[in-house]
Amino acid sequence: MRPSKNAAAPETAPRGFFASAVHAGIKKNRSAPDLTLIYSEAPRTSAAAVFTTNRVIAAPVRLSRQHLHASHGRARAVVVNSGNANACTGRAGWDCALRTASATAQILGIRLEQVLVASTGVIGVPLRARFITSQLVALKQHLSPAGMKDAAWAIMTTDTFPKLCSRATTLNGTKVRVAGIAKGSGMIHPRMATMLAFIMTDAAVEPADLQRMLKAAVKESFNRISVDGDTSTNDTVIALASGSAGVAVKSGTPAGTRLQTELTALCHALAQMIVRDGEGAKKLVTIEVRGALTAGDADRIARAVANSPLVKTALAGSDPNWGRILCAAGYSGARFDPDKVDIRLNSLFLCRDGANTRFNEAAARRELDHDQLTLRLDLHQGRASARFWTCDLTREYITINASYRT
Amino acid sequence: MRPSKNAAAPETAPRGFFASAVHAGIKKNRSAPDLTLIYSEAPRTSAAAVFTTNRVIAAPVRLSRQHLHASHGRARAVVVNSGNANACTGRAGWDCALRTASATAQILGIRLEQVLVASTGVIGVPLRARFITSQLVALKQHLSPAGMKDAAWAIMTTDTFPKLCSRATTLNGTKVRVAGIAKGSGMIHPRMATMLAFIMTDAAVEPADLQRMLKAAVKESFNRISVDGDTSTNDTVIALASGSAGVAVKSGTPAGTRLQTELTALCHALAQMIVRDGEGAKKLVTIEVRGALTAGDADRIARAVANSPLVKTALAGSDPNWGRILCAAGYSGARFDPDKVDIRLNSLFLCRDGANTRFNEAAARRELDHDQLTLRLDLHQGRASARFWTCDLTREYITINASYRT
Repeated sequence: MRPSKNAAAPETAPRGFFASAVHAGIKKNRSAPDLTLIYSEAPRTSAAAVFTTNRVIAAPVRLSRQHLHASHGRARAVVVNSGNANACTGRAGWDCALRTASATAQILGIRLEQVLVASTGVIGVPLRARFITSQLVALKQHLSPAGMKDAAWAIMTTDTFPKLCSRATTLNGTKVRVAGIAKGSGMIHPRMATMLAFIMTDAAVEPADLQRMLKAAVKESFNRISVDGDTSTNDTVIALASGSAGVAVKSGTPAGTRLQTELTALCHALAQMIVRDGEGAKKLVTIEVRGALTAGDADRIARAVANSPLVKTALAGSDPNWGRILCAAGYSGARFDPDKVDIRLNSLFLCRDGANTRFNEAAARRELDHDQLTLRLDLHQGRASARFWTCDLTREYITINASYRT
Repeated sequence: MRPSKNAAAPETAPRGFFASAVHAGIKKNRSAPDLTLIYSEAPRTSAAAVFTTNRVIAAPVRLSRQHLHASHGRARAVVVNSGNANACTGRAGWDCALRTASATAQILGIRLEQVLVASTGVIGVPLRARFITSQLVALKQHLSPAGMKDAAWAIMTTDTFPKLCSRATTLNGTKVRVAGIAKGSGMIHPRMATMLAFIMTDAAVEPADLQRMLKAAVKESFNRISVDGDTSTNDTVIALASGSAGVAVKSGTPAGTRLQTELTALCHALAQMIVRDGEGAKKLVTIEVRGALTAGDADRIARAVANSPLVKTALAGSDPNWGRILCAAGYSGARFDPDKVDIRLNSLFLCRDGANTRFNEAAARRELDHDQLTLRLDLHQGRASARFWTCDLTREYITINASYRT
């Protein structure tokens, strides 16, 4: 278990938010919390969300999308369970999500469409609503501003540590807080993954602005990480803005830009925690591409290198096999001249002008033994660049995933 | 070591072809052959080839492409080494490939552009031409019609068994033979991989027709398999037609259609051997998609399922996790209604109308424990279908690839 480095400190917890968690019997392990409720006391809390791009969409994602639309971007509660994704569960799965939201609305005294739901875990196994609905009164009773850490534990599946982060800044003379929790850790891929994240701020932001800001933040963070290249049916990032700090923030203003920066940094920190905790991963690897002709080319190369099983297994074995990196760039679809490419491991040149530099093998292995490293590709073709984060592919990934359901 | 099921029997060896193999010192293991020469005695032997689509192209691939062009599709010798891919080796790598071809032409008394070369192995390490050129006289001396099996051994890298196949048919009253050798076994992916295959026939086929037939055969075989989703810098499939059987075959004639069928069946058998011998693989898995709206949709789904690390690890663990299969279909980009999908493991329904069938878990595990199985997706959207072959992703894949260079 690696500790979370960014546990939400009380002074940076956004005002107006409460959370609690319980073990509801969805996970087999009775000591593991598997159900959490996040609640905002402000009646006009804004909500925004980014969901999976998979065509197979879990029931909770469909219901949350419908509620966000019906409420015009206002939501006050999020109910999340782990241990069962409620995906590919047919009509019964939809009914389960609806009953969960409906019971939550009744117990909290809010409108149905103000409740969002999310699930993560095994696909294709029926989820019984009663497991969840029977715990809602207890969850309401235990709601607390300090409950976010429990919530971070309750949304974990194969994660080995809870992921929390919080930040604070001063906007128009008033302190504003941004915090979030997230879970990985398989099926992590650009354009979302089995990845849940719940972001809160006590700034007042109109729903359309919040949606715009969230989308921009996700693009630079959760959409630039890769664990295994699979995209899940349940991906959800929800942002809530309570307004409890008493500062209204609009997109396009200096305060809006500041809030965007905080939001992006928060998502970025959570995304890095997800990669660091990738299934079986031991290393956090940054892929930096520069000198590309276009941003699209830079992006394609960074993604291809980040997703290559051969690159990722070489990283696991501390093998400075730069040929696989260049090879992945080659099949990415990007335009470049292989004979001009430089590849560096941190600052050590492995390849210059597309060929071996006769680098010091022992030195390269020492760099690769660290748990954080950067692979830098310079194409010398233009000025575009891109960054991406990935992890090594280890035997533990196979062990974890070969018998996930049992 | 699993035995090759289709060793080329003497009576089906195409007439006019000779081969030999030696250990040239490129591989560290002295008992492993790493260099082979394939030779056709017929002066007008036709040649065709399909090469990697990677933008990073190894020197031997560039040279062979140039020679095929210069000779208008006539070639009489192929020199292949394993242990070093001669890729990302700059100007020196090109010179090495050229010196190899040049020395071969001189020793065999044929024109330079009649020599094709291929390499497979580690990327980015200089390959010394002298290792190869010093062995050419010995290779010529040992040329034999029975040498094809030695050639199949000499092109292996992490393959665990040599891959040979031969077939015979009667065209216009005369027996015609088709045979081939191939190697895998990592970086295997649709649109070619570190995959070499050399196909021979003693039918007389004009170069343009041979190219057309080879392309069609590759599309249905080597381009429909996946081991790990990486595409190599060195992929090469070469076909040679000696004409020694004394039958001329043209595309579009009944005999041409028959030869095409034989060629496709041969490539298909070799492709299946490659998947069966995928790095660390224990199972050969056929993905069958039917009921798609378009052939493109069927193809996208079959590829996505075949490439999903989560599907492949579940197969390794005999876990009937059909949710991952449906999930991969969902992110493939194909259009379909998830609520109409049926998924079968061999004939056992795991999922009907997108939801669990409450299948017998023990029975499903027994089916998954076999080393050959079929996953069938029926979309119930239209009439298009596609097939693909993949293998399971095991911990041995990681072990093999984490320290390939050492």
